[in-house]
This record gives sequence, C-alpha cells and structure tokens, in this order.
Amino acid sequence: MIEIYDTTLRDGTQREGISLTCDDKLRIAARLDELGIPLIEGGWPGSNPKDVEFFARARDRPWQQSAIVAFGATRRVGVAIEDDANLRAVLDAGTDVCTIFGKSWSLHVTEVLRTSLDDNLELIEESIAYLKAAGRRVIYDAEHFFDGYAADPEYAVATLSAAVRGGAEVVVLCDTNGGSMPWQVEAAVGRVSQAIDCRLGIHTHDDSGCAVANAIAAINAGVVHVQGTVNGYGERCGNANLCTIIANLELKLGMPCLPDGALTRLYDVSRFVAETANLAPDEHMPYVGRSAFAHKGGVHVSAIRRNSRSYNHVVPSLVGNEMRVVVSELSGRGNVLCKAEELGFRIDKGWNGGREVDVGSVLAEIKQNEASGFAYESAEASIALMLARRQAEYQPPYQLIDYMVNVEHRQGRGTFAEATVKVAVHSHVVHTAAEGNGPVHALDRALRKALLPVYPGLAEIELLDYKVRILDGSRATSSTTRVLMLTTDSHSTWGTVGASTNIIDASWRALTDAFEYGLCLLRRAQTTRAMTKEPTATIS
Amino acid sequence: MIEIYDTTLRDGTQREGISLTCDDKLRIAARLDELGIPLIEGGWPGSNPKDVEFFARARDRPWQQSAIVAFGATRRVGVAIEDDANLRAVLDAGTDVCTIFGKSWSLHVTEVLRTSLDDNLELIEESIAYLKAAGRRVIYDAEHFFDGYAADPEYAVATLSAAVRGGAEVVVLCDTNGGSMPWQVEAAVGRVSQAIDCRLGIHTHDDSGCAVANAIAAINAGVVHVQGTVNGYGERCGNANLCTIIANLELKLGMPCLPDGALTRLYDVSRFVAETANLAPDEHMPYVGRSAFAHKGGVHVSAIRRNSRSYNHVVPSLVGNEMRVVVSELSGRGNVLCKAEELGFRIDKGWNGGREVDVGSVLAEIKQNEASGFAYESAEASIALMLARRQAEYQPPYQLIDYMVNVEHRQGRGTFAEATVKVAVHSHVVHTAAEGNGPVHALDRALRKALLPVYPGLAEIELLDYKVRILDGSRATSSTTRVLMLTTDSHSTWGTVGASTNIIDASWRALTDAFEYGLCLLRRAQTTRAMTKEPTATIS
Repeated sequence: MIEIYDTTLRDGTQREGISLTCDDKLRIAARLDELGIPLIEGGWPGSNPKDVEFFARARDRPWQQSAIVAFGATRRVGVAIEDDANLRAVLDAGTDVCTIFGKSWSLHVTEVLRTSLDDNLELIEESIAYLKAAGRRVIYDAEHFFDGYAADPEYAVATLSAAVRGGAEVVVLCDTNGGSMPWQVEAAVGRVSQAIDCRLGIHTHDDSGCAVANAIAAINAGVVHVQGTVNGYGERCGNANLCTIIANLELKLGMPCLPDGALTRLYDVSRFVAETANLAPDEHMPYVGRSAFAHKGGVHVSAIRRNSRSYNHVVPSLVGNEMRVVVSELSGRGNVLCKAEELGFRIDKGWNGGREVDVGSVLAEIKQNEASGFAYESAEASIALMLARRQAEYQPPYQLIDYMVNVEHRQGRGTFAEATVKVAVHSHVVHTAAEGNGPVHALDRALRKALLPVYPGLAEIELLDYKVRILDGSRATSSTTRVLMLTTDSHSTWGTVGASTNIIDASWRALTDAFEYGLCLLRRAQTTRAMTKEPTATIS
Repeated sequence: MIEIYDTTLRDGTQREGISLTCDDKLRIAARLDELGIPLIEGGWPGSNPKDVEFFARARDRPWQQSAIVAFGATRRVGVAIEDDANLRAVLDAGTDVCTIFGKSWSLHVTEVLRTSLDDNLELIEESIAYLKAAGRRVIYDAEHFFDGYAADPEYAVATLSAAVRGGAEVVVLCDTNGGSMPWQVEAAVGRVSQAIDCRLGIHTHDDSGCAVANAIAAINAGVVHVQGTVNGYGERCGNANLCTIIANLELKLGMPCLPDGALTRLYDVSRFVAETANLAPDEHMPYVGRSAFAHKGGVHVSAIRRNSRSYNHVVPSLVGNEMRVVVSELSGRGNVLCKAEELGFRIDKGWNGGREVDVGSVLAEIKQNEASGFAYESAEASIALMLARRQAEYQPPYQLIDYMVNVEHRQGRGTFAEATVKVAVHSHVVHTAAEGNGPVHALDRALRKALLPVYPGLAEIELLDYKVRILDGSRATSSTTRVLMLTTDSHSTWGTVGASTNIIDASWRALTDAFEYGLCLLRRAQTTRAMTKEPTATIS
C-alpha cells in the first residue's frame, strides 16, 4: 500500500496568500485523520512560534489513523548537534515521527550551506542518527534531489546513503524546484532503487505542470511513499495535489491508499481545506473541482444523456463529487426535497398535518437569492427558515423594524462603532443601542440587548464563525458581499447566509437568521420539556 | 519543429464561466498571431452564429504568422454529404485549413452516433475527402482515441487509417475525457506511429492532472503537432495548458516551437487572454503565474540571494515573468531587502543619497502588524509606503483627519449608506460626504470627491479587486478583519492591506494606502515628464 504523506500544514502554507491559524491547522489535521492519511506533517517548530503551539496542542488529541510529524533541517554548519536549536525544537515537538531535510545538490552545499561536500554527508548522517537515538522514527527529505542528480549523480546518491546510514526509514526524493520531467524522475528513481536499500518516497512541485505525473512516474518506478498537499497548495506553482494523486492511485492504478470507503470523502475534504484557508476553491481541479464533471458543450450533454461514461473518465460519486449539466440548472428540486426531509418537513402534497412544503416556491426563492449572491450550501438554517416561513402557523420569535450603524474615526480619539435596533417582540416594540469593536459586533450586541429580557436562553447562543467573501471583487467596493455565519447553542450548530452590495446589510441578514433559528430551537426544546415534564415546580 | 495548435477560441470557451464575444475572439487571435502560433482554431461555425461571424470577420484580417482553422464534425449519419449543414458551414468559413473530429471509440459509434462500426469508418474517410476535394488542408481529431484504443485497439487504429485514406495531413489523438496516464499515451502513440503513415498530433485534457505530461509524453513518442489552450481553459478540468507546454518544449526539451525571441511574450499573452475572458488569472500557473517565481519561505529567500538558480527551475525572464519575494511573518531580513530593491530603494547603509532604508525597523513594523492581522504578501504598495514614510523628504499627498460612516435600514424604505471624510490636502482641510451601495463604497466615493479637485489624475485610478477575510472567525463578529485591495492606473497595478476588528476601519486603511500609493506614482510620472519635456507650450 502506497503511504500518503500530507504536508498541507507546512509546505502548503508556503503558498502565497495562505495564512492558517493554529486552530485552522488543528481542524485540518482532524479532517485528514478522519480521511485516513497515515502521516500528517504539522509544521516546522524551529521556524516559528505558531508551529510550536500546534505541536503542543496536537499532543493531547486522540489521533485515530494519523501520526503527526514534526519537520526540520539537518543541523547547522559549525554548530554542535546538542546545541542546534532547530533539532531541539523538532524533538521538543514530541512526535513519534520526524522529517528532516538535507542537501543533495552540490550547488546548494557549496553556495547556500557554504560547507564541503564531505561535511554535508556527515551532517545528514549525524542529524538523523541523533533523532533516532532519541527514539524517533525519521523520514529524510532529500531536497533538490533531481537537480542534484542531474548535476552530480554520484554525490546525490551518496547523500541518500548517508541518510540510510543515519537510520532513515524512508528516503524521499524531492523535486524541490519542480522542474523535472516524468521520464527524468522515472530514470533517477530506477537508479536510486538499485543503489540504496531503503524505502523510497517522492515529493514533487508543479513548476513544469508535471507534479502529479512525476509522482505517479516515481510510484511506477518503485517508490512507496508520496508527499503532497490538499488542493496542491504550496510555494510558487504549488505542490503535487494529493487529491489527484490519491484518486489516480485508487481509480487508475488500482493501488488503494486510503481506508476502505474513505475515497468518497475526498471532495468534502478538499472543500473543507479551501474554506478553512479562506481560498475560493479551484473549481477546475481534477476529481474534486465543482466543474470536474460539469458538462457545458451541447454535444457532450446530449451524449451523456445516452451514456454517462461517454464524457466522464470516472464515476464522479467515487470521489464524492457529482456530474452537473451547466446549461440547465435541473438539480435544484431534488436537493430541496432532500433538504426538507432532513430538516423534518413533510413534502408530500397530500399530507394533512399542515406542514407540507411548496417545493417549487422554495426553489424559486433559492434560485433568485443565489443569483444575487447568496449561497446555501453551508447555510441550512437559512433554508429551514425559508421552509418554516411558508407554514401558516409559523410565528417568528421577533420582527425587525429598523437598524442603524455608525462608524466614526476622530483624530486622536480612534475609531468607534455604535448600532441601534428597533424590533417587535410579542407585539412590543423594543428600541435600543450598543457599541462594539466594529459595526457588526455592535449590531450583534444591540440585538441581544433587545431580545434578552424576553428570551434569556439567547445567552447560550454563540456565534462560532463569521466569514465574508467579496463576490466579483472586480467591481471593487461596490461588488456583492456574501456573509456566512456559524452559530451554536452548545447542543447543535447551524449555518446562515446573507448577501448584499452593502456588507453591513449582508451581515445583518446572516445574523438575524442565526438568532431566529436559534430561538426557534429554544422554543421547540421548551415545548418538548413542558410536554414531557411532571408539573412539580416552576423553574423561574 | 513541433507544430502548436491553439484551440482557446473553441475548446477553451467550453470552460464553465467563459463567454467570449466575437470581438474578444478576434483580439485573442491577433495576440496569438503576434506570438507566432501557426494554427488557431477559431470556432465551430456549424454550432453557433457567433462563430460564423468570427470567420466572416477573420477573413479580411492580415494574419502574419497564423492560419485560422474552422472546426466541425464528420458528416451526420444518414445525411448525404452535400446536404450536411455542418460541413457546409466549415467550407463557408473560408479557411485554408479545417479540422474535423470523428469517433474512434466503439462505444461512441454504437451508443452515441448509433451507427455501425463500418459506417463510421466510411463517414470519416468521406468527410475528409470532401473537404480535400474543395481544396482545403484537413486536420483530423480522433475523439476519445485513447479510450477507444483501450477498448478495441484494432478498431481505433482503423479509424485513423480511414482518416489517412481521406487525405488528412495530421491525425490528432485526443484524450477527450482526460483520463489517460502518460505511459498509456506513450505506448499508444508508439503503436500508432508504426501502423499509420501520417504526421501525428496530440490533444489532451486535465481530468487526471496529467494533461501537460501526456502531451509531452506523446511528443517524446514521436508526435509533431500539439493542441491546447492558453491558460489551460476548457471543459471540466480544462485542456492542456499551451503556456506550460510551449515553455517546457523550448526550455526543457530543447525543441523550439515559437519564432525566435517570442517566448518572452508568453506571460503577457497569458494575462491578456485571462483579462479578455474576464477571469482572474490563476497566479499559480507554471511559468506564467504571478506566483510562479515568488518566494515566501525565509530559507528559500536567503538562498536565492546567494544564487537565484537555487530555487528557480528556469530564469523567469525567459517567459516574460519575474522573480518576486513575498514578505510575510515567515520572512527574514532578506525578504525586506529584496523587496526594497525591487521597489527602487537603496538599502546599503553607507549610501549617501538619503534614501537608505532601516530594514530592521520595517521588518519589525511588518511583524507587529502581521501579528495583529495584516498580511503583506500581496500588498507591496503598503510595504512601499512603509519604506517611503521613513524617508525624511517624503510628503504624503494627503492626510486623514476624520471619517464617519452611517448605514441605516428603515422599514419600507430599504438600506442606505453614507460617508463623510475630512482630509488635509496641501494644508487645506476638505470636509465632504457621499452616498454609496455600501459603507466602503460610500467612503471610496467621498474620498475621491475630496481629492479630485487637487488631483484630477485620481480619476484614472480604479480599484480592481477587494477581498475581505475574517481572521480567527471563531471570535465571530468581534474577530479581526483583513482587507486586501488591488488597484490600477492602467499602467501598473498595486496591492494594499488593512486590518482591524472593525471591518470599516480595515477597509479604510487599505483604501487610503491604495490612493496614497497611486497619487505618489502620478506625482513621479508628472515630475519625470516635467524634467524630460522641452519647455515649449503649457498644456492645461
């Protein structure tokens, strides 16, 4: 079984435009563990304090299928190994597995490290042996291996032998600059596997557009460990995209590399990582892009209606994706029906309980709103409210009348935000105001202030996440803004959406949906309690 | 010399989200002609009237280096060739060269065309012979060749023989579904080149992430004609990216395929096509992405200062791109030094021109700001201002005193945004106000209104892109917001950043940096003009 090694959290974060918080990194690692990735590189503790924190927090987590790996470099030239702060940080990370990288390319040894070729061999061996002596499993990344091999094959292979002598369990051949061609990778791997008695790995970059092909070529030539990142994030043109490699291995080469059945989670993992990194997903990615099985051309669409194999290279559901026809948006109705059932609404017209749903009108509202920038994929509470508001007996917990937000910057006094809200609660009008860190925070606080006297349970409702995306950013400050909020009452969690050319208005819509849905849940819980409880004492 | 065949204007437009006008298509074709692409597929005149118009207008243009190609299908089953409207349209397009596609995969013949295998051979031969008889050069696209070859190699090769009998000058093997692996492509091409006496071509798609590698594998196996699209646009995951293929051929395989010196135009052509298609360029594309030679990791940057080959697989200027250093929390001193040099600041301490930079204090400010949510890697103008503000002689074009934003929602009357700004310009205080679609748009308009009388050049400065990211969204509406803006004056483009717990304040910071930097550029351009111009007449 080919061993998958994910470096999204280290090499992936070198992509221009990514910055992950420690929480983000832990959440991504948890998803990769769930997917069944055996090795997750968590960061480079010797290079920045955020990564030190990651390992400290990762230590206590119950990882199910993954080992968390700390990354570092061979010891510095001219420093005694016990005094090397970088290797110390690797050990302090407290992982069972470590990866360290060293130089295979003579150019780097003499011009970047500025040491002798022999010294470099020694410090590779010594660094690995040091970590091994401390009881760690060690993976060795041979940086620039293919460039080094092209410049001086004997020396490049000698660096690998040094790593094996040091005790590396896998020696990973890195195409660090991403300039190699598949046949060069294949030839070099063939030669190395004869010269070296150790498991081999591959780590490629996409600077020649061949990262995936190079990884697969190396696997064909005998490599058993492959490194890459989710969505191909990484420095310059990115690392090899693990989503593509995994799907190719499982579906094209017949080489399983994930636990049984896990492949269908690939699409969700890809989107989760993009969301967490707050990057718009590349919709044209192989296998996991939303357009990967989308058909636009008339010829393709009509052929597909005859036989779906005719223009799909694999069955989309195998990777959790789906086929779409771009010209006609036929998919909606089925989705709404499923969603209504999921949310506990009956959808059959003939049902006599009064909670039947007019799917057509919900669908029309969704389509109209999506056309103006809403996105309901992760905003199920907004859909639930759309369904609820169509019930004759539905009574909203409150109704908005007016709001106002004011942000002021005054020289020497800083910036202030203040909001007023006017809402009707049980036919009383409440008009109040609050300040906040920013305009949305002020609105959030003012609305709570208005509703808390009537709904004390609101105190348990907390916003968990708040995301803003500018759609069509090329319309600059007048473009549409989409706001997604995630809210919890500690029992359940729900998502809501708002969109508008006015960022405050978009936020307000997501915020009020979040509160309205939360108060509905609260009301339902109270009704249930009231109906099931013995009438003993009143809890005030 | 490998023959490059561009199908951006036909297959490229099948990408979800692209719609090119006839003018767009003509402009793109003109750029490809200038680049020296020998064959440009203009469209499928049998499929839509826009493409008919394209060919009508293309006929009168003075193409210098390119032949424009009309695309179509083999004749329809059961229709006499003279009555086939699609082939008629191909002829009516009036090009010297035509490409028609036909079926190589038995599945498609029987299930999609719904005809017999023998009939299909006949209609391939007959269709090509018909166009040849009309005096056209004919290229034959063997659709789904690799799937067909996998299913029934004898029949797949027989379809090619039919095309050769018909008179095709090139037979193009198409991986239409994009599911093939490089070694499969190489093996099939090897076999075909023994069976068929005709020049062979390759046309690949990226559904397995191997489009470029597959095209290169085919070229290695003897193919002499390669099809693809600029930026890899195309249905689903896209076609093979011609920018990558061309650069690989010229720089990696030593196979020139463009006129001498044309390769340096590749970057501009790529961006021109993205702009024309109104798509944000993929900044991570091999060779032509803005991040393709951008370095973020501190280790990489310090190595690059020692030897630029150390982390660049080719010299960026060969394809018209440039190396950039990304400044972020991961950066060291080297990143700031490089950036200062890029932006025209002298960094040597001993220099006596007065524009030396205190790198340490800039780096400290960057790190401190990044810790509070700024991100400078795509905000070079904000760094430039940070450097400029440390120059004793720097005079900011304006200074902010106060601003205020008001957003109001009133029942029945909708939502309104209004802003006031008070700024000092040349020691005058300007205090004005404006409305907008939203609060930031209102600020943008109010600030322009305040500055335009003094700086009429501001009218040319336009915001291109506006991005908002909520950092640590788990602090919900009180979390920090980061705003990135991209601005242009039609000569150059610059990025700025702002961050704050107040989304309006973050936007304001990015906006004012964007204006300040733009006005500095304007001032510099005017000074340069004033110093180089003969003092003849005053242009008011």
